[in-house]
Parts: sequence; structure tokens; C-alpha cells
Amino acid sequence: MTAREGSRNLLVGVDAGGTKVAVLVADAQDAALGQATYPTDLSGPEQTLAGIAAAIRVTLAVAGVPLDAVAAVGLGVPGRVDPETGVVRHAVNLKWEALPVGDLLGGLLGVPCFVENDVRAAALGLQRHPAHAGVAHLAYLSVGTGIAAGVILNGRLHRGAHGMAGEIGHMIVDPAGPRCECGSRGCLEALTAGPAIARMGAQAVAAGAATVLRAADPLTAEAVYRAAGAGDAVAQAITGQVGRRLAQALQQLIMTYDVERVVLGGGVARAGDLFLAPILAEFGRLRAESALAAEMLPPEMFHLLPPDYDAGTWGAVTLAREGVNRVHSAVVDSTEGGPQREPIYTG
Amino acid sequence: MTAREGSRNLLVGVDAGGTKVAVLVADAQDAALGQATYPTDLSGPEQTLAGIAAAIRVTLAVAGVPLDAVAAVGLGVPGRVDPETGVVRHAVNLKWEALPVGDLLGGLLGVPCFVENDVRAAALGLQRHPAHAGVAHLAYLSVGTGIAAGVILNGRLHRGAHGMAGEIGHMIVDPAGPRCECGSRGCLEALTAGPAIARMGAQAVAAGAATVLRAADPLTAEAVYRAAGAGDAVAQAITGQVGRRLAQALQQLIMTYDVERVVLGGGVARAGDLFLAPILAEFGRLRAESALAAEMLPPEMFHLLPPDYDAGTWGAVTLAREGVNRVHSAVVDSTEGGPQREPIYTG
Repeated sequence: MTAREGSRNLLVGVDAGGTKVAVLVADAQDAALGQATYPTDLSGPEQTLAGIAAAIRVTLAVAGVPLDAVAAVGLGVPGRVDPETGVVRHAVNLKWEALPVGDLLGGLLGVPCFVENDVRAAALGLQRHPAHAGVAHLAYLSVGTGIAAGVILNGRLHRGAHGMAGEIGHMIVDPAGPRCECGSRGCLEALTAGPAIARMGAQAVAAGAATVLRAADPLTAEAVYRAAGAGDAVAQAITGQVGRRLAQALQQLIMTYDVERVVLGGGVARAGDLFLAPILAEFGRLRAESALAAEMLPPEMFHLLPPDYDAGTWGAVTLAREGVNRVHSAVVDSTEGGPQREPIYTG
Repeated sequence: MTAREGSRNLLVGVDAGGTKVAVLVADAQDAALGQATYPTDLSGPEQTLAGIAAAIRVTLAVAGVPLDAVAAVGLGVPGRVDPETGVVRHAVNLKWEALPVGDLLGGLLGVPCFVENDVRAAALGLQRHPAHAGVAHLAYLSVGTGIAAGVILNGRLHRGAHGMAGEIGHMIVDPAGPRCECGSRGCLEALTAGPAIARMGAQAVAAGAATVLRAADPLTAEAVYRAAGAGDAVAQAITGQVGRRLAQALQQLIMTYDVERVVLGGGVARAGDLFLAPILAEFGRLRAESALAAEMLPPEMFHLLPPDYDAGTWGAVTLAREGVNRVHSAVVDSTEGGPQREPIYTG
């Protein structure tokens, strides 16, 4: 039996990463009906997709919700996405290359599927968090294996001419810096993302520095922040340098976009205050030097991602909602003068 | 005699700088009815305003157009402006500080006056130039005594949370660089604006370098570009360094906003190809290193401001038009259900 169209009022948000697939089922009032996380199946591009479809089906079943009550699925993906067509151009961690993920996943489930970059989806998710709701100009900076920003301008997600807006991991901040995977030298990502922090730790160890990092195995960015928190001077020098460079990049982001709120998240930011404090210290230094900096970089504008909040899946729910509403307006537009259908989703 | 409201269909655009006031009168079809330039009266803040009002009256008189045929005036100002209230917060070159310019000029003329930063107004002006019309994501970078960008995103001027979007002259690009007037070190403006270029020339002369700049009086940025064009190696080293730094700033701007077109203007950019070539050379180097750079920085996206086109006054005309339409929609909105007035301007 197929549900009446009017009863398709649930939304599914999915955040698919290189290690796990997080699924959230929400109703029209934005209440969570079910939430679950599954390991990512990386045995092949189609297996990964089938695994995501299975994760959605299981989450729905556990929540006691039939698939045909779902109006749409939103999917956040770590990579480059064309949100109009649902094609994922590259998603290195998922081994996807030029894959029409929206159509394929939609076909597997029989439900429309809308795809977006995961950092952008998380920025959308922040819009409905009580701490950030109503902030019209917000940047979400994700610092993990890579670095990217999702940017809300005038209350709307900004995508840019090629869907590349906010790819500030590849801003060149030190033309004499280390080579980035993209080929350029001194990209922000090559200087301050997780692998760069781990590399700086390893270099200090190799240079014979007296540091507890010598015993860290594996020597990750997390280990560097933990050592800094325990008072290790070598680790503190590294986190201090990362903080100064991230502060510089954020200053550039703020002077460019004029956002009023910055939220920091991603794997490296999970170090919490150990991650945030060196960034805030650098902003303090800048404020002391310049009235303009004091005005544009007030300490209260910088926040860590709320640790108990899954911005990625909630943003994917928003993506699903916007997608359904967009498709529906197009239907209404194309039948102008004809019978007007009720909105299929108006949450 | 007062003209009927319906006949108030002309617009005036004004670009007020520290040396001259440029005025343009346009009809509803965007045809220029009159254009003139007058020296700026800097004897006092109110004299400057009165001078602008006089410049408008004279331009109208020469064009044979009565003041009461004007629906609105748009004014571009080199400084910080609150476009909602028409208050100019600072305009150093005009010696204006916290001045309600929109209300004051509107009062002097009896015509609504809409005010915006001059670089933003010029970005608006580019939208109607045949070479740039239809470009949805465009940045206009003005390099003169200061540096700022006016940015069009999704076809609309982006102003930001505090009207500071695009103030990239104060992006910190070299934290160890020279002190900027804003108090910070190594702002883009302190490294690549006109005064910085002139200073680098003077430093080379003071250091005893063999250069024709020794004979330049005054030693301006223009003189440095002229010497570079004549083959002077010292001047070429300076313009090369400025080009690399501006290219780096533009790369950051492009990775942030994902604009598809960049237009360069301002006093320093009047050096034309001598100004542009070092920037393009640096982009060529970046493209050779990185597929991402090759995609995001194609040579055809970079343009000089058309030299025979006054983007500032045309943008101020757009400002006037948008202002009138905005005020009018507000009137219609507030009288919902009541009699609908005809739009007073729909050019």
C-alpha cells in the first residue's frame, strides 16, 4: 500500500563520512523520531551507496516509520557536490568520483534525495540550534583531515558560482609553505589541518625535541592537543602556531564576508578549549592593536560546535526540506493556471 | 509648480571623492541625460555637502532637467556607510564623521537620497556594463589610496552583518608586515595600496638602488609603474611583489566567495597592463602547480575596469533606483488591502 501523498511528511537527514553513516529521522515539527550510526561500507562506490540506503531503512524500521512516509532524504557528503544535479564530483574518503548520488540513492529508496557538501549541510544545521538561530551571517569552519567553511549569508547558504564557496582550506596563506595535496604551496589545510598538526609533532620528535609526543602512538593531532593540555611545551608551541594561523584565516574570512558569528567544528576542534584558546589569544592580541579588529573580532562571536548536537544530520534534514519545497514550487510554476496542488511538505 | 508624481522618473548618481564630485543624470531607460565633474569643496563637512547639492543642481540645469523630475539621488562615498539610515560613519577624505548624509542631502534637494560606500556602488555599476552584465558572482577590487572590494553574490550586492563585507584592505596577509593605519600589522592595504608602493620606491632610493625613481618627483605609485614600464629593474621588482601579493589576496577572495569574475579598478589600477601583468603572471604560476587553481583562476576571469566607463556614478544611479523601489514596496506593504499606488519608478 502506498501512503497518500499528504502523509509523506517525514524527512531523513544523513551525514556520510569515511568511517560512519549517521542517520536522523525527523517529523514535520522538526522532532527526532529516530537516530542511528552505522559503519561506512567502503568496499566499493555502489556498496557505499547501498550501505547508506540500508542504514536509512534500518533506522526507519527501528523508529517504526514506513519508508513511504518519507518526503525526502538529505545527504551530506565530504567532497565536491553539485547540489542542483545531485552529482558528487569527488568524495575521496567515500571513493566516489563523478557519481550521480542523488539519482542513485533516490532510485534505491524510491524517495527524492538531495545532496550537498557535508560542511555546508552542517552550517544549515546550525541555523536551527537555539544558540545560533536567527544569526543571519554565520560561518561554520570545519577543521579535520581537511578544512572548509559553510557560510550562511543573509540567512541563506552561500554556494558560489561553482559550488566552491568556503573552500578556504585551499586559501594560500604562506606561498613559501609546504606543498598541499591540491598542488599549491602553503594552503591553510597544509598548515593547520589534522595531518599537518600530526606532521609538525613528528618533525619535532625527529628533531630530537624533549616532548611527551615521543611516546605518542599514533602521533595524531589529538595527541598533540592532549600533550599541550598536559603542559608539554613542544606541543604547546605547535598548537599556538596552529591557533595563530587559524586566527589569521578567520580574520580574512570575517573581513571578506562580514559574518557576525563563527562556529568551529570538525575532528581537530574536538580538542575543545585546547583548540580554541590559542585562536582566541591571537584575536585578543589583534584587538589590543586595532580598533577595527576590536569591532570585527569580539570574543563572543567565536563558538565551538555544541558537542551534543549533530549539526550534520540536522542540516541534511533542512536540505531535504528545502529540496522538497523547491521541487514543489517548480511544479506549481510549471502548471501555472492549472490546478494548484497542496504543498507536499511545509514543515 | 510641482511635477506630477508620475513624471518624477529621472535618477541622479553621484560619486563623491576627496578631489572631485562626479554627477550623472539618467532617465528611466538608463540613458545619460547629463554628466559633469566638479572639484570637491573640503572647507568643512557642511560645505562639502552643499557643494555636492550645488553640483547636482548645475548638472541638472545644464541638462535642461528640472529638479522635481528627479525621483532619487544615489551617492557613493569613500568610507563607511550605513545604507539603511544614510549615515556616513567615517569618510576620512571628505572629513565626514557620523554625518546623516542621506537626510541632509535629501533635505537640501527635496529629493530622497540613498548613500553607499563608493566601491560597492561601483560594483553595482559594473552589473549594467555589457562586458559584465549577467555575471551573478562578481568582485570589484579597488586599489588606490586604500583597498576594498565590492562583491555581487547571486546577482545582489553583499553588504554583510555590519556593512563591512569586502573590506579586504584590512585582511592581515603578513603578520610580520608593516603597521597599517588601522593599527594591525601587515594588512593588504599596508603592503599593496598606492602609498605602500610609493614607500617601497622611496625605500629603494634611500637604500641607494640604481633606479630612475631617484628622479621621480613626486615618487608616487604611478611613477613606480611608469618606471617599470620603461624597463627599470628596481621598479619591476616592486610591481612584481605587489602583483604577487594582490594575486594571493584575490586567490583568497575567490576561494572564499567563489566569484566567477574579478574586475580591478582604482587609482593604482589605472597603470593598466603594467598593473595587471604581474598579477596574471602569478596566477599563471599557480595554475601550473594545481588543477584546482587552474579551474578556479582562469585568466579570462580577470578584467580591468573599462577605462571609459564611470562605474561609480552608474552604480549610484542603480542605488537610487533600488532605493526608490524599496521605499515604494514598503509603502505598498504598509497599506495592504488599501488602494495600490503605481510604482513611482520602475526603470
